Amino acid sequence: MKKKPLILVTNDDGIMAPGLRTLIEVMIEIGDVVVVAPDSPQSGMGHAVTISETLYCDEIKVDDGPQKEFKSSGTPADCVKLAVSEILDRKPDLCVSGINHGSNSSINVIYSGTMSAAVEAGVEGIPAIGFSLLDYSWDADFLPLKSYIKQIAENVLKNGLPDGVVLNVNFPKNKTFEGIKICRQARANWVEEFDKRINPQGKVYYWLTGKFVNMDKGEDTDEWALANNYISIVPVQFDLTAHHFIHKLNDWNL
Amino acid sequence: MKKKPLILVTNDDGIMAPGLRTLIEVMIEIGDVVVVAPDSPQSGMGHAVTISETLYCDEIKVDDGPQKEFKSSGTPADCVKLAVSEILDRKPDLCVSGINHGSNSSINVIYSGTMSAAVEAGVEGIPAIGFSLLDYSWDADFLPLKSYIKQIAENVLKNGLPDGVVLNVNFPKNKTFEGIKICRQARANWVEEFDKRINPQGKVYYWLTGKFVNMDKGEDTDEWALANNYISIVPVQFDLTAHHFIHKLNDWNL
Repeated sequence: MKKKPLILVTNDDGIMAPGLRTLIEVMIEIGDVVVVAPDSPQSGMGHAVTISETLYCDEIKVDDGPQKEFKSSGTPADCVKLAVSEILDRKPDLCVSGINHGSNSSINVIYSGTMSAAVEAGVEGIPAIGFSLLDYSWDADFLPLKSYIKQIAENVLKNGLPDGVVLNVNFPKNKTFEGIKICRQARANWVEEFDKRINPQGKVYYWLTGKFVNMDKGEDTDEWALANNYISIVPVQFDLTAHHFIHKLNDWNL
Repeated sequence: MKKKPLILVTNDDGIMAPGLRTLIEVMIEIGDVVVVAPDSPQSGMGHAVTISETLYCDEIKVDDGPQKEFKSSGTPADCVKLAVSEILDRKPDLCVSGINHGSNSSINVIYSGTMSAAVEAGVEGIPAIGFSLLDYSWDADFLPLKSYIKQIAENVLKNGLPDGVVLNVNFPKNKTFEGIKICRQARANWVEEFDKRINPQGKVYYWLTGKFVNMDKGEDTDEWALANNYISIVPVQFDLTAHHFIHKLNDWNL
C-alpha cells in the first residue's frame, strides 16, 4: 500500500479559526496531518519573521481527530520554519495554508500572512497552496469549499508544482460556484483612508482603513473570476525579478 | 527653474539608523526631502501592515538639514501609506528606502522591511528604490555608497520606472566596487537552525537562526555580482503571477 502523504497545515487567523478547522477536516481525508499555526491572529503580517524575539511552540489538543497540532507565538512564516526544522521528521509532501477569513486576491497577496506561509513552504521546496474565502466573518460558511479544496490538493499531490511556484486559491462568498478559473493577479491597490482620532490623553493616532481599487479590467484576472462567481487560482512565484526590464535597465547610464 | 523633485525617505532600521541618515544626506542634494520612518527597528517585518492596532505618527527633529521628518509606530509599509495619505500634499516623485544595515539580496527580498516600503510605494505608483549594504553593524561605513546612490536615484528620476517595477540595490561590504551590475534574483534560501533553549521557568523557547544557501550558480544573479564586488541592481515586480505555469495549470483536472 502506498504511504499516505504528510501534510503540513497552517494559517494566519490562529489555531482556533474555523477556516483552519475546515482545512484540517479536508486534509485528514487525504493524508497524515500536522498543524503548526499561530496562537493568535496574524492577519496583515506579510512575510514577517521573528528575529529579535523568542518563539514558543507547544503541542495542543484542540478537537478530536488524528492530526497532531502545535501552536506557536510566531508568524505564519515562522510556523512553517518551525515545522520543517523542529517538528517534522521529514519534509512534508504538501503545505496548505488557510482557509483565510477574507480575500487574498490581487495585490492582497503581498500583505497576506496566509500566502506568506505558502510562499515560505515553496521557498523550502514544498508544494504549497493558500486558500482564502471572500468573507471576513468568523462564522463564515466554509462547507461549500471542501470538495474543491480536496480536488485541488489532490491535483497538487499528483502533479507536483514547478520549483518556485505555489498556488493562491480564492473562493467567492456565494455558496455555489461557476467553476474554477486559472488567473493572473489583477493590478489593483488599496487607497488608504486613515481614520484620524484623538486619544484620551489628547494625542493624535490613526486607524488604517482603505478602499480597494481595481484598475485592471482584464477578464483573465482573479478579480474578474471572483466577481463572476468563479474560484480563482493564481500560480504565484517568489522570483520577483522583473525580467522584462533587465535589458532596458542595461541601457541606463549606470 | 525646474521644480525640485519631492522625495520620500524611509527604512526599516528606524529613524535613528545611520544608514537612513546617509540616505537623507544624499537626497537633500537632489530634492525636497520628507522622511517618514519607524520609531524603532522593524527588520524582518516583510510586507506587514498594521490593521488591528493604532498608529502614531509625529514630527521629529533629528539633525540639522532642510528635510522634514516624522517617526511612526508602524511598519515600513505603514510609513509609506501614512506619508502618501496623511503627510504629503502631493504624490512624491521618488521613494527611497534604506540604507539597510544588512543584505536584501536574493530571497531576502521577501522578508525585507526595506524592500516592502519600496514595493508599497511602487504599488501606489511612485518610482521607488531600496538600498542595502552587506554589513549588519550599526556603525557600518556608508560613505563609499553615496555617489552611487545619487547616480541611481537621478537615473530613476530622469528615466522613470515601468508600472509595477521597483529597484533592489545591494552594495558589497568592500569600500571600493567593480561597478554596477543589473541582475536577476538568485534562487537561494535559508536553512533554519533554531536555537532551542529553556527559560528560567523551565519552558522551551527558540531563537530563529539560519544559514543562507545559494544553489544558483548563475553569473547573472545578484549573489554572483555581490560576491565579485559589484553593486547589484535587481528590478523587482509585485505581479507575482507565475505566467509561465498558467498554460500547464489549465491542463489539470480542475
